[in-house]
Amino acid sequence: MQRQAVFQTRLQQSKLDGAVLFRVADIFYLTGFHFLPTERPIAFLVDPGQQTHLFVPELEREHAESTAYVDHVHSYPEYPSLRHPMEYLKDLLQETHFEGKRLGLDTDGYGSSMGYCGPAFSSLIHLQEKGSLEGWVEEMRFVKSVAEIELIRESCRWANLAHQLLQDYSAVGMREIEVSARATMEATLIMADALGPSYKPHGTPANAFFRGQVGPMSAYPHSFTQNIVMKKGNNLVTAALADVWGYKSELERTMFVEEVSPEQEHFFHLMKQAQEVAFGAIKPHIPASKVDDEVQRFIQENNLREYCPHHSGHAIGLLGHEAPFFDLGDHTILKPGMVFSVEPGIFVKGLGGFRHSDTVVVTETGMEFLTFYPRDLESLICS
Amino acid sequence: MQRQAVFQTRLQQSKLDGAVLFRVADIFYLTGFHFLPTERPIAFLVDPGQQTHLFVPELEREHAESTAYVDHVHSYPEYPSLRHPMEYLKDLLQETHFEGKRLGLDTDGYGSSMGYCGPAFSSLIHLQEKGSLEGWVEEMRFVKSVAEIELIRESCRWANLAHQLLQDYSAVGMREIEVSARATMEATLIMADALGPSYKPHGTPANAFFRGQVGPMSAYPHSFTQNIVMKKGNNLVTAALADVWGYKSELERTMFVEEVSPEQEHFFHLMKQAQEVAFGAIKPHIPASKVDDEVQRFIQENNLREYCPHHSGHAIGLLGHEAPFFDLGDHTILKPGMVFSVEPGIFVKGLGGFRHSDTVVVTETGMEFLTFYPRDLESLICS
Repeated sequence: MQRQAVFQTRLQQSKLDGAVLFRVADIFYLTGFHFLPTERPIAFLVDPGQQTHLFVPELEREHAESTAYVDHVHSYPEYPSLRHPMEYLKDLLQETHFEGKRLGLDTDGYGSSMGYCGPAFSSLIHLQEKGSLEGWVEEMRFVKSVAEIELIRESCRWANLAHQLLQDYSAVGMREIEVSARATMEATLIMADALGPSYKPHGTPANAFFRGQVGPMSAYPHSFTQNIVMKKGNNLVTAALADVWGYKSELERTMFVEEVSPEQEHFFHLMKQAQEVAFGAIKPHIPASKVDDEVQRFIQENNLREYCPHHSGHAIGLLGHEAPFFDLGDHTILKPGMVFSVEPGIFVKGLGGFRHSDTVVVTETGMEFLTFYPRDLESLICS
Repeated sequence: MQRQAVFQTRLQQSKLDGAVLFRVADIFYLTGFHFLPTERPIAFLVDPGQQTHLFVPELEREHAESTAYVDHVHSYPEYPSLRHPMEYLKDLLQETHFEGKRLGLDTDGYGSSMGYCGPAFSSLIHLQEKGSLEGWVEEMRFVKSVAEIELIRESCRWANLAHQLLQDYSAVGMREIEVSARATMEATLIMADALGPSYKPHGTPANAFFRGQVGPMSAYPHSFTQNIVMKKGNNLVTAALADVWGYKSELERTMFVEEVSPEQEHFFHLMKQAQEVAFGAIKPHIPASKVDDEVQRFIQENNLREYCPHHSGHAIGLLGHEAPFFDLGDHTILKPGMVFSVEPGIFVKGLGGFRHSDTVVVTETGMEFLTFYPRDLESLICS
């Protein structure tokens, strides 16, 4: 596999004899093996002989053998079992001659919080050197391939449908949960019928929701579902997602129930302009921070500082949030093929939240939208 | 708060001057503050003067101030920002006199994989001693209070509804995703109407699904949704869940579409008996391993070893899987108030999977069911 070859070449360049990875998205990226982390540790290994291995619980052995691009699959009975899984991993490290070698690690042991407890990896075996691979595979994931961009584009289409249904159902007297449940179900059914039997979501199919951002509560940017009833004039801050074979996108809109006050309109237009400042700034060969710089300057010039508590966006792909970030402190150089959310937000206590989020890909000359839902005020008044 | 008092007493008994915790479920348990982990670190601190603190991004400040039981809320601007959040945490540690003290830690730094990258906690400040708090709060969570058990019981009721709807929709020609989407939506709407405006799910309201366990694919215990069509005679292995103010339960059943073959019936009854062996074994003052011991003996006696790749259950509450486990290697002593899933499974390649999961609470004399869906074969044939 091309991705493993790139990873192994970098190991060699870094004078590392092998590697052990525990992070779920990175293991999927390198091996095609998708799993839900539980109490049972899973690891990917490149041994000093350049053979690749997946270390899984017996429960996942057949699944791994049938889907993972690796030379060998090894299983242990169970967690915690009579012998801890890390004892089996220790055996495997010895059998594959890791002893006394220079080894790269992403994290010092398995990190799931689903009841797992175990020793630090570095206590298992005597190594000549332990190198950190933190961020290595994540960096490989920064620039998306043509195929990955197509999957994200496909995700955007289904999120768009879910969002349209969410808007259609949003009305005075409707509960947040009801609007979300109806839109999600209908979009899911249509998606399943359209994509047919080969469709395998790794997460949730097309879905759309509000996270509690209805009315004045929409001023809390990372709120949770409230089972409240929509009223005339409420701000709604939405989110629509769709997992397509493991890939994700992000679509968020600020909508209004039936009518919009001059004050709401004022902040809506500022938010929309802030997002356009970001769109205009995105191009290859500049640091990611430059995009947030320009947005923050706009925020400053318009005296919005106190209303804007977060950065302007994040990369997206296998995870809902990935590095790099459109953030003052992230100086990663943008390259064509990087995919980002663009979402400066304005949150006014007592009034509501104002945020659109679009998913865009950096191109040779600037950026291209992957999401395509209307952004203008008129299109976003629910009636 | 009672929970914080217990935690602080244990710190003192362990001669620790303070503590820093990063784990999401533990922070919620101690402070009532619920959040979705992203790239932005969040930590709970007990300082050497016994004051409690929550360290959050600016984005979460108001939310934390309005919901967290702590003496102080501190915020940092953003991640990564011009100054890394851990630099602000370092300031806070100095201001609150952690320098040179004996400090307890659950993990050596923030562990979210959503694009976060940062230094080990122990590199931030000079400590006299660093103690591991791994598992401390988890252990406090082992025995559920009467209120927690009532929340889990409430979760079981709504999961039961979602499961009933899932069974009602399961039929020849239906797609897995459709059955799941319809059952989930209807159960969610009824739940939202019944619980009214005060209902706030921290996760997903009532929902039910198959994880791809339809027909022969049901032999893969941790599979993923397949968009396949149900056929006459298919095994279905289900799951129904419902988040109730942060608390979870687990209900799983083995069902059949219209008819069941003698071979399917054979394994169904063995699975049901294995689960009953576990029910019979559960009582206080014995090690959790004893329950799995008895199930494994039954499995051995019935020559099912090769079909049973996992242990007999796990604790459940704030997380879908929690320690302790009904596992040969987990010798935690059972106590009244502990809540577990009970779910020995049989997976026969080419035929299908057989697993019921019930949620039960350990009582003074044995156990009590919290789930109450029918377990017998006749009730589980979908027509």
